[in-house]
Amino acid sequence: MSRRIITLTTDFGEGSPYVAQMKGVILSLNPEANIVDISHAVPAQDVQQGAIVLKDVAHTFPAETIHVAVVDPGVGSDRKIVCANIGQQYFIAPDNGLLSRVAKASPPSEIIVLTNREYWLGEVSSTFHGRDIMAPVAAYLSLGMDPRTLGEPTKELVRLSVAEVKVAANEIKGMIVSFDSFGNLITDIPATMLAEARRSKSLTIHCGQHQVGEIVTTYSNAQPQTLIALIGSSHMLELAVAQGNAAATLGINLGDEVSVTW
Amino acid sequence: MSRRIITLTTDFGEGSPYVAQMKGVILSLNPEANIVDISHAVPAQDVQQGAIVLKDVAHTFPAETIHVAVVDPGVGSDRKIVCANIGQQYFIAPDNGLLSRVAKASPPSEIIVLTNREYWLGEVSSTFHGRDIMAPVAAYLSLGMDPRTLGEPTKELVRLSVAEVKVAANEIKGMIVSFDSFGNLITDIPATMLAEARRSKSLTIHCGQHQVGEIVTTYSNAQPQTLIALIGSSHMLELAVAQGNAAATLGINLGDEVSVTW
Amino acid sequence: MSRRIITLTTDFGEGSPYVAQMKGVILSLNPEANIVDISHAVPAQDVQQGAIVLKDVAHTFPAETIHVAVVDPGVGSDRKIVCANIGQQYFIAPDNGLLSRVAKASPPSEIIVLTNREYWLGEVSSTFHGRDIMAPVAAYLSLGMDPRTLGEPTKELVRLSVAEVKVAANEIKGMIVSFDSFGNLITDIPATMLAEARRSKSLTIHCGQHQVGEIVTTYSNAQPQTLIALIGSSHMLELAVAQGNAAATLGINLGDEVSVTW
Repeated sequence: MSRRIITLTTDFGEGSPYVAQMKGVILSLNPEANIVDISHAVPAQDVQQGAIVLKDVAHTFPAETIHVAVVDPGVGSDRKIVCANIGQQYFIAPDNGLLSRVAKASPPSEIIVLTNREYWLGEVSSTFHGRDIMAPVAAYLSLGMDPRTLGEPTKELVRLSVAEVKVAANEIKGMIVSFDSFGNLITDIPATMLAEARRSKSLTIHCGQHQVGEIVTTYSNAQPQTLIALIGSSHMLELAVAQGNAAATLGINLGDEVSVTW
Repeated sequence: MSRRIITLTTDFGEGSPYVAQMKGVILSLNPEANIVDISHAVPAQDVQQGAIVLKDVAHTFPAETIHVAVVDPGVGSDRKIVCANIGQQYFIAPDNGLLSRVAKASPPSEIIVLTNREYWLGEVSSTFHGRDIMAPVAAYLSLGMDPRTLGEPTKELVRLSVAEVKVAANEIKGMIVSFDSFGNLITDIPATMLAEARRSKSLTIHCGQHQVGEIVTTYSNAQPQTLIALIGSSHMLELAVAQGNAAATLGINLGDEVSVTW
Repeated sequence: MSRRIITLTTDFGEGSPYVAQMKGVILSLNPEANIVDISHAVPAQDVQQGAIVLKDVAHTFPAETIHVAVVDPGVGSDRKIVCANIGQQYFIAPDNGLLSRVAKASPPSEIIVLTNREYWLGEVSSTFHGRDIMAPVAAYLSLGMDPRTLGEPTKELVRLSVAEVKVAANEIKGMIVSFDSFGNLITDIPATMLAEARRSKSLTIHCGQHQVGEIVTTYSNAQPQTLIALIGSSHMLELAVAQGNAAATLGINLGDEVSVTW
């Protein structure tokens, strides 16, 4: 049984005692669990950004990994908590759209709504289900528990409304969906959509007042401090300032439109 | 022997090389130690905040866990370093009050002053006893060492002066003792003191210029951006702004008085 | 085989999904790897600071540890990636000077340029070799792989130009090379150079407009908020403000000259 890796993704902030409480609960039930932090720097209550992090990272982990994700503005309401089997991994999260993007990339083979209190802490607070429900359930799963004992099967996950990239004859319109710690601006336009555009000599990428006329291979191809476009490491179109910080200097925000014409 | 979980709580800052040095020292002595970060975001030299973090988090870990805590403004002075057995867990820390709150919740069954240099690094700096004394001692403990070999027993720990909550006929006065990464303001008033107040229809909670007239169950019960009071996940009265950040917007500081009247 | 500790040092930022992707890749190849974060708070693309962190921390880890360091402004260019055996540990890093300081402290016994794509991910991006090359190579090494199978031996590492400390009859001139999270200012002047100066009654240390006339043993020896000089925990001369933050209050920057006269 190699089901002992448990990852954590939250909006609690790096160094949050809430994260440590979840680890304590998990290790109390399974001292052999291997807990790995994916990120606790998801912006507070930002389910969309949490969903992006999970989609970008979870697939790099091995089969049978248990991913626990807590971005949970509705804690204590009637929103459900689920355990979903997606791509041969387990995802435990509030059913608020946080799993939308991983589930879009690979449809869940099983979704269980957590209802069996036997695997929760004895006392469940109304404000911290990450610690009181999700952490102990993850620990039991890591001990080899059958997920069907955790609750009731369901068919569908709640989905976030995600704006679709618009593809026309000689134009693709997407937007900035995240930026990384280097200030690189990551769009929702996948490299696979750009094959034709990249063959054209009239390729132009617009974002706000900025434009760039080619897609380069890597950051080091460009003059320092110039705006460049490239395909990032998750295969998405990305805007960057070579040896600089695009997010800090270009006045571009999350959600801003990015158009590619050719 | 399951005594292999070692937690770290410091004011070194997330990503500090000092934390990594402690991990290197521990793993050099016991490569099988399972090191878990509780927090390195305790404000610099703030023993009170460190004590609160330990009290909120340590009890979630299993028996035999070894907690190492380093908030140590007196490093190199004659303050002692202790290994205390509290609630069946081990705590290694400077004896400066950092263990006050865990020891108040559950009296130590044994306190050893670290004096036996045999279990310290060969060379001990005068500025970093976390690495040179506490880390190796924790590693030896995790290997099954009897704590009594580490030094001399003592009876008492240094205590921080902590303002007591004042309870009168129809009034309770406490204060803001910490805030979390969501900006929720956490008081020192435990839920257990509030039973009578919560049954009253004239309940009012004051803090600075702000007041709120009820205690709700969870964040999602309230209109966005309104001030709410609730019982947080550590069973303490808490002030929050629903879907907002109370610490950033209310002008309330650590130490500010909170009164509950009814 | 105890070669299962893999450390990570990057400039990706704490909580970066890029770090988590590296961990996922490593654990997919070796689920028993023990991954330890050294720091992800190296300033973006600052190879010098990364080199300092590695030199200060790596030696505290046990023999056979595998250190992966990614501060890689030249990713995608023709800079090489190496696996170097230094002080009985393995270092996997871009060959851009990041290993300069560890290699200066202890010359490499073997340097392999990574060329064997068999141990890389099947698809290698042009922007993230930490995930696509260094992480899988570290995982294979942790499984007991002979480093010579990873590529071609070479003789020399790229070195950063590092200003040498200037030593004259009654004067030593160095500079501020880093500061820690407490705001302590760390110089490149080792304690070993200061023996004569410390015996003199006319010892004076200058930095910018500031000066201090003695080297104390530890922070707690001085009046709060006064400037002090001491030997830090890595045996280097350090300037600090007792119970304060020197970096935030003194107007001193990285690279500023520090002179010791006597």
